[in-house]
Amino acid sequence: MLIQDKQQRNWKPIIKQFEAVVGKNGVVQRREELITYECDGLTSYRQRPAVVVLPRTTEQVAEVVKICDRNSIPFIARGAGTGLSGGALAVENCVLIVTSLMRQILNVDLDNQRVVVQPGVINNWVTQAVSGAGFYYAPDPSSQIICSIGGNVAENSGGVHCLKYGVTTNHVLGLKLVLPDGSIVDVGGQIPEMPGYDLTGIFVGSEGTLGIATEITLRILKSAESICVLLADFTNIEAAGASVSDIISAGIIPGGMEIMDNLSINAVEDVACTNCYPRDAVAILLVEIDGLAVEVAANKQRIAEICKNNGARNITIASDPEQRLKLWKGRKAAFAAAGHVSPDYYVQDGVIPRTQLPYVLGEIEALSQKYGYRIANVFHAGDGNLHPLILYDNSIPGALEEVEEVGGEILKLCVRVGGSISGEHGIGADKKCYMPDMFTDVDLETMQLVRQAYNPKGLANPGKIFPTPRTCGEAAKAMSDAKKFEEVSRF
Amino acid sequence: MLIQDKQQRNWKPIIKQFEAVVGKNGVVQRREELITYECDGLTSYRQRPAVVVLPRTTEQVAEVVKICDRNSIPFIARGAGTGLSGGALAVENCVLIVTSLMRQILNVDLDNQRVVVQPGVINNWVTQAVSGAGFYYAPDPSSQIICSIGGNVAENSGGVHCLKYGVTTNHVLGLKLVLPDGSIVDVGGQIPEMPGYDLTGIFVGSEGTLGIATEITLRILKSAESICVLLADFTNIEAAGASVSDIISAGIIPGGMEIMDNLSINAVEDVACTNCYPRDAVAILLVEIDGLAVEVAANKQRIAEICKNNGARNITIASDPEQRLKLWKGRKAAFAAAGHVSPDYYVQDGVIPRTQLPYVLGEIEALSQKYGYRIANVFHAGDGNLHPLILYDNSIPGALEEVEEVGGEILKLCVRVGGSISGEHGIGADKKCYMPDMFTDVDLETMQLVRQAYNPKGLANPGKIFPTPRTCGEAAKAMSDAKKFEEVSRF
Repeated sequence: MLIQDKQQRNWKPIIKQFEAVVGKNGVVQRREELITYECDGLTSYRQRPAVVVLPRTTEQVAEVVKICDRNSIPFIARGAGTGLSGGALAVENCVLIVTSLMRQILNVDLDNQRVVVQPGVINNWVTQAVSGAGFYYAPDPSSQIICSIGGNVAENSGGVHCLKYGVTTNHVLGLKLVLPDGSIVDVGGQIPEMPGYDLTGIFVGSEGTLGIATEITLRILKSAESICVLLADFTNIEAAGASVSDIISAGIIPGGMEIMDNLSINAVEDVACTNCYPRDAVAILLVEIDGLAVEVAANKQRIAEICKNNGARNITIASDPEQRLKLWKGRKAAFAAAGHVSPDYYVQDGVIPRTQLPYVLGEIEALSQKYGYRIANVFHAGDGNLHPLILYDNSIPGALEEVEEVGGEILKLCVRVGGSISGEHGIGADKKCYMPDMFTDVDLETMQLVRQAYNPKGLANPGKIFPTPRTCGEAAKAMSDAKKFEEVSRF
Repeated sequence: MLIQDKQQRNWKPIIKQFEAVVGKNGVVQRREELITYECDGLTSYRQRPAVVVLPRTTEQVAEVVKICDRNSIPFIARGAGTGLSGGALAVENCVLIVTSLMRQILNVDLDNQRVVVQPGVINNWVTQAVSGAGFYYAPDPSSQIICSIGGNVAENSGGVHCLKYGVTTNHVLGLKLVLPDGSIVDVGGQIPEMPGYDLTGIFVGSEGTLGIATEITLRILKSAESICVLLADFTNIEAAGASVSDIISAGIIPGGMEIMDNLSINAVEDVACTNCYPRDAVAILLVEIDGLAVEVAANKQRIAEICKNNGARNITIASDPEQRLKLWKGRKAAFAAAGHVSPDYYVQDGVIPRTQLPYVLGEIEALSQKYGYRIANVFHAGDGNLHPLILYDNSIPGALEEVEEVGGEILKLCVRVGGSISGEHGIGADKKCYMPDMFTDVDLETMQLVRQAYNPKGLANPGKIFPTPRTCGEAAKAMSDAKKFEEVSRF
């Protein structure tokens, strides 16, 4: 479905039409300004768009999409550009529709616990807008201070609190959408479980391939009366994993449960923290416990006992906000820390059934040995969502390709044990070639019926999610060739 | 999309083909045996199918559907036939594919908290299969001892525990489906949040219009350590409603919160209970509180205080299983009790924002006065899901039509205050004519793109969910005419 348009298009009349909709300031076309938009958080793929358009309203998005539709121009919605699977990566001769000027919180309805926002609103602005009244917005990706709600909706983002509260789709009540033909429709509504087909559910996580959300109705939750964070350190990672299983088996669902291994701990200690975590621990388990004060008090006792029974050396419990933040600081800084202890790193995102944790960690260690790359493990242990960080040096020729191979092996391992190739980062451009490891041709064709129904011309975010007939390596090469073509042909 | 096939079809060769797939015992075609299948739980609509087929496996369902597809015969999946919106109602000259022989629990995986079942498995068999190990299946429609999981999936059924645990869609991880062309596909999987489009989400609640689920992977939950039920009685219904809002505002999410009004209380007391509920209460509020023992103990205190602050006369708390069952007994018997105190009753199902409860109850009372029918109110108060029971006598000519009109007025009222025409009973044949009150033409067309993608010939459950161009009255008349035609033409 990759739209190939090798002919030199005359952009001038198209740009005039865009300018008529969003004004001259709303169109970016100068080469040096477009550089900002040539990749998202997945920096290993780059493709410069032909034009960037910055609308401010639903109607402007619809008009821009109609211009693309009339002229058969591929268009790609982009929020803050923090995505990690290349979901907002441009294709050749495309228009990027960037929502960063759509930053209004349109409505706050505390009585009915919902907030309506434009897609460019930053994730943690939602919580900020309602926290004074004792509410918060649950999904909290690590990038929550910079990522936007539109991107969260496209990628069905998660965060450390998914275990208890679910991912983005569990918190979106309704959407105003611009479909790929430019029509404006409403799906879902202001209450959960609307009748008819659950179109909200299918649009959330569809990575911009079915349309662009321009107004999003979010569910907000009442803030917990009490929160505490427990840190347990272990001399083997299996014991940390067993503690996670035992906590769940005891009927406790903590707000979040994160495991970090020794390599991550030391990376974080080198960079961000001062005595945040014990450097000699093989693994640490961080558990956030929230709820009523009595519930939190009882649960922290039980969780501490479970960890001790599994051989935890020390247990630290933080109840006041400052201490809690200190315990979380290292976890939140883990990705950035990896970038400090290694010239480059590659974040993988896969899911496994919780029971497979010890086996999978052993296999990842074996891959690390086999390929000779250090792999730091940081993961949402409660829901089996792994984030192996493969450390490498991009200046060594062939290193990226090898690291991508290791990443692919990890994904195949996840699928082999009954898991998934993506937990919360989406498929985008990066992982589409692994979709056939997880789904049969018939299953993929069944999904594509939806894309054909809503995006029949294939102009909305082409080349994402679904594998092209090419293999992964060929697709990467084609993409790099396309980039070279674009480099020489545009100017 | 109603398939009209007024010509006398020669069923003999078709039936031979069905028999070749499911055996002679798997095909029902005698007039007197077909009577069982001429309506579901919505008994006011009746239409006899031409043939009933009872498959036992996915492959048999696929073969039966292929025969229907090849011969352009409409087919309708039916579970236990307990649905309340006519979702499994036959159309003229159709085949009913009944899943009541598909009753195997195929896999129980306690470690990963999931169970795989065939669609004919009865809802509470799932809990029975795992309760010994301390687990349960959360969605619990009132009909849970007779309704089947396949029907729950089709209608996205709820129950008293939706407030805390969500409806069926929140508990279905994956589905094996037979699509309307007879192909077999898998959607979702064994873990939540699979990559790609959320087809599981769109199939759950699609009322058999997109295909037939033949294997269903359900999520099971750990049973709560402690459960108690609190009954508060009030001298006005607004105070009961205010207590519900205050409980939620206090950050407590009980397992369930149900309100019954004086008419329901007395119906239940007349029929089922002995001093279960106080007959002079204007309303009672039932709250189920579950969780850790300390949490339940703290919450029941706080909930009791909230109810007292809102003017509750008496509060009864039941902790042991027998007492709890006694307090629930009346609520569970409410629909049946209505059938005892009145010759007939019509159950409505609508949703409103919680904050609109006092206003909506006042308007329902006004409708009761205006039309001269008693209306008993029983509802899932926590999530604003109303179940008004309109009491009437079907032997009085025109009464049913008038009661349907009252029911329609209530639905329009729900929509007017920002709610929904269905909470958990589906749209089916009964409510499709109210869909335009809730959705614009464009919104409905956007939904129908999915139906056209998966069910392009319109053979899978035609005439359900989406309004035909006819108005409600005309559709009912056409259906009744069709029935008369069928009566005279078949034999």
